Amino acid sequence: MNKKLLAAGLALALGAGYTLSAVAQAKPEVLVKQRQAAMTLTGKYFGPLSQMAQGKMPYNGKIVARNAEFLTVLSQMPWDGFSPATADIKSAALPAVYKDAAKFKAAQELLQTNVGKLAAATKGGNEGAIKAAIGDVGKSCGNCHDNFREKKQ
Amino acid sequence: MNKKLLAAGLALALGAGYTLSAVAQAKPEVLVKQRQAAMTLTGKYFGPLSQMAQGKMPYNGKIVARNAEFLTVLSQMPWDGFSPATADIKSAALPAVYKDAAKFKAAQELLQTNVGKLAAATKGGNEGAIKAAIGDVGKSCGNCHDNFREKKQ
Repeated sequence: MNKKLLAAGLALALGAGYTLSAVAQAKPEVLVKQRQAAMTLTGKYFGPLSQMAQGKMPYNGKIVARNAEFLTVLSQMPWDGFSPATADIKSAALPAVYKDAAKFKAAQELLQTNVGKLAAATKGGNEGAIKAAIGDVGKSCGNCHDNFREKKQ
Repeated sequence: MNKKLLAAGLALALGAGYTLSAVAQAKPEVLVKQRQAAMTLTGKYFGPLSQMAQGKMPYNGKIVARNAEFLTVLSQMPWDGFSPATADIKSAALPAVYKDAAKFKAAQELLQTNVGKLAAATKGGNEGAIKAAIGDVGKSCGNCHDNFREKKQ
């Protein structure tokens, strides 16, 4: 494949949302799309764990361990997308995200801590401990959504 | 927080796209949204590396190493979203995704292999080798997009 074509194709494929001067200079609309993408995937990989912990889906330790590993990475991804530059873009983010940044940051860190504990628990293999750790991750999600996300009607 | 409310809130927050009987039974629309989310984040974390490799952004070894780790996980995420159940949902996926599943699978594996090589190269710290590995990852993206994704006009 022609190299120039490849470069042009990649620029298109990657959304071309970046300026050339700095790493975190994506356009506000792109930042919102990226942070929502991280939340979508967090739902994909946490949803089944939540259901397993509640007995609504058969428990599968391999899936829990894999998803916990994925969530360890995903729980690092949304936050730089909540740049003040995005405050005026329509989304479910409440103004508190930008007005109470310290509390928002603490909520992020609590999620990351609890996901870390879940990942550690999956190494131990104790189903009860793992389910409790899943519950704690769920509470971290809910706590942050309660304070920083518009309620769905 | 009330536990029932928490559970209900979580179900909403997580998109409620899952049925209770199996792990991979999300609705086709949800699968498409999830695979597109994985591609969005792949763009977020590969875009800067591509620019660094091309000299369009200052090289930063720490960011390259972190993003390579993220891409190792992200490169596992899109593929189960290309379920045959999604073939009729409007997206940029070409019919070849479903008609030439073996070739599509090989393209996924080539990406994963090249991302693995990039992650390994970041451990070595040789900037030239890392930039070459970034280029190989980019070619894997381009190769798959060329064959399995509608061209943007």
